[in-house]
Amino acid sequence: MEKKLTIAIVGATGAVGQQMLQCLEERQFDVNLKLLASSRSAGKVFTFNNQKVTVKELTENSFDDVDYALGATENDLAKKWIPWANAKGVVVVDNSSAFRLDENVPLVIPEINPEDIKKHNGIIANPNCATIIAMVALHELHKEYHIKRMIVSTYQAVSGAGVKGIQDLENQLKDPDAPCTAFPYPIAYNLIPQIGDFDENGISKEEWKMQNEARKMWHHPDLLVNCTCVRVPILRSHSESIFIECEKEVDVNQARELISKGQGTILKDDPQNKVYPMPLDTTDQDLVYVGRIRKDLTDPTGRSLALFCCGDQIRKGAATNAVQILEKLIQ
Amino acid sequence: MEKKLTIAIVGATGAVGQQMLQCLEERQFDVNLKLLASSRSAGKVFTFNNQKVTVKELTENSFDDVDYALGATENDLAKKWIPWANAKGVVVVDNSSAFRLDENVPLVIPEINPEDIKKHNGIIANPNCATIIAMVALHELHKEYHIKRMIVSTYQAVSGAGVKGIQDLENQLKDPDAPCTAFPYPIAYNLIPQIGDFDENGISKEEWKMQNEARKMWHHPDLLVNCTCVRVPILRSHSESIFIECEKEVDVNQARELISKGQGTILKDDPQNKVYPMPLDTTDQDLVYVGRIRKDLTDPTGRSLALFCCGDQIRKGAATNAVQILEKLIQ
Repeated sequence: MEKKLTIAIVGATGAVGQQMLQCLEERQFDVNLKLLASSRSAGKVFTFNNQKVTVKELTENSFDDVDYALGATENDLAKKWIPWANAKGVVVVDNSSAFRLDENVPLVIPEINPEDIKKHNGIIANPNCATIIAMVALHELHKEYHIKRMIVSTYQAVSGAGVKGIQDLENQLKDPDAPCTAFPYPIAYNLIPQIGDFDENGISKEEWKMQNEARKMWHHPDLLVNCTCVRVPILRSHSESIFIECEKEVDVNQARELISKGQGTILKDDPQNKVYPMPLDTTDQDLVYVGRIRKDLTDPTGRSLALFCCGDQIRKGAATNAVQILEKLIQ
Repeated sequence: MEKKLTIAIVGATGAVGQQMLQCLEERQFDVNLKLLASSRSAGKVFTFNNQKVTVKELTENSFDDVDYALGATENDLAKKWIPWANAKGVVVVDNSSAFRLDENVPLVIPEINPEDIKKHNGIIANPNCATIIAMVALHELHKEYHIKRMIVSTYQAVSGAGVKGIQDLENQLKDPDAPCTAFPYPIAYNLIPQIGDFDENGISKEEWKMQNEARKMWHHPDLLVNCTCVRVPILRSHSESIFIECEKEVDVNQARELISKGQGTILKDDPQNKVYPMPLDTTDQDLVYVGRIRKDLTDPTGRSLALFCCGDQIRKGAATNAVQILEKLIQ
C-alpha cells in the first residue's frame, strides 16, 4: 500500500486557503492535510475528508513531514517560508506574486502552459486572478488568431482583497460609516479604480500583471496589454470587458465555437435571448463564462474582437488553478 | 413687469423629472412650473420655490398655457405628447431617445455644441446619459488631438432604469429573492452586460448610442466607437473606462491641463495619492470627474490615451443637461 502524501496549505485560514481545502476535498485528494497559519490562527479546527484538522503555527520546522505545499500568503511571508519548504525538498505552488516573474519559476495555467510545470525548481507560481480569467477566456482565440494587443477593463470582486474585502462590503452595505479595512475608500455603492499601488506612469501593479504574466505564460514577449482595473461591489467573481487585436482576421462564429470547445470555458453568448456571462452565475464555479462576442467594428481590418467574461476569483482565479497545478505535479 | 414664463415637466414624478424640478429650483428659475404625468400620478403634490405644485394629468390640452417643456418620458409617450406641445408652439427639450437621431432635431450638450440649439424646429433632444458623461470628459481632448476611435467599457448605475432600478437594487440587497422589475436579472452583487435590446450583431441599443450620438454632436461622421455597456450595483453615477485613439500624438500633462480647464469637468488625477474619480464622489454633483489619465502604451504611435471618468447619471447625464439647454434657449 502506497504511503499517503502530505499536503500543506500555508495561509490556511484566509479566503484562498479555505477554498484550497475545499477544492482538495472536492477533487478527491486522498492525502494527509496539514494546515499552517500565523500563531493567531493556530488551534482553529477545520474538517477535511470528514476528519478534524487543527491549524498549526507556521515555523521553519513545519515542512519536515510535508510532500507538497499550497501557498496562500502575502508576498512578504511567501518570501520567508517558501525557502524553508524548499530546503526540506517540498515543492510549493504559490499564489502570491512574489515569484511570478522570476525566470527560474514557472507561472502556470494548466489549460494554457502545463508543460512549464516540469521546469520547476521547487516553486510553481499561480498567476494573478484577473489574468487567469482573461487568459482562460482568450486562449483558444490566441491559438487561432494570435493576439497582438489587448485592451481590458476589469470589474473585480471584493474577494480579491480576501476575507477583509468581503467584510468591508457587507458591513458598509448595512452601515455607510463602517470602516474601510481592505480598500482606501468605501466600496458599497461605489467603484474604486485602484487595485495595487501605482507607478509613476499612473499604471497600477494589478494592471501590469495582466501584461507581464500573460507574456510569460503565452511565451509571447511582444504582447501589448492596456488594462484598467476597477474594484466593484460584487462578492467573489471578477468580470472583464476585453478588446483584442489579432494578427489574423477574426470570425465571430468560429470564435464562439473555439470557446465552446475550449478547456476551462463555457460559452454564454446569445444576447438577444439574454444569455451572457454574469458574476452571480459564476460564483462558486470553476469555469470561465465567455460571451458578448462580437467583431470590433472600429477596426476596419476585421482583426479585432470584443467580449465579456466572468470567473470566480477565489476558485479558478486562485485556489482551483493552484490545485490543478498540484494535480499535474503529482501525476 | 415681464410676465413669468411657464415651464412644464412632462413625466414629472420619475427620477429624471424630479431631478429636473430640483435643477430648476437650484438654478433659480423664477417661473411658473407645471407638472404633468400619467393619470396614476395626477394629484401628487411637490414643492417648487416654496410653493406647492400639484401634478396634472398629461392630455392634448396640457400645453395651452406653457412656454417650454422638459420631457422625461419614455420614447412611446414622447412621440405622442411632443406633437401636442409643438402644435401649441411649445419648444420641448426631450430626454427620450425618440428624436435624438432625427436630422431635424438638434442633439445638444451645452459644453460641446450650444450653437446647434438655434437650429431647432420645436424639439431639442437631450443625449443618452453615458454619452453625455463620456463626451464632456473627452471634449477638450477631442478639440486638441481629434479623436478617431474610442473603446469604452461602462459601469452604469441602476438609476439609469429610473426609480424602479434604484428600488430593485435596494430591495435585492435586503432580500436576494426580491423581484426584478427593472432588469432581466438580479442586480445586487451582480453585473448585467446588457443595457437596451441587442441587434443581430450582438450590439445593444445603449452601445450604439455612444457612437451615433457622439458622431452627431461632434459633427464627426467618421468617429468609430466600440462600447460595452454594463449595469453595476451602484445607485446613481455612471463610470466609464475609455481608450481613445487620436489623429495627433497625445501628451499626458497637456491632457490633464486641458481637462482641468475644460467646461463641465474636474480633474481628479493623482493616483499615487489615491486621487481618481469615483461614483460616490460624483453623486449629486453636476461636474464630470476625470482621472487615471495615461498614455496607452500599447499604441506605439503615441496617439492613444486611457482614462476613467464618472458623472451623476440623473444630473449631468439627464436633468442638468436638459435644464442647461433650456437656459440657453431662454437667453
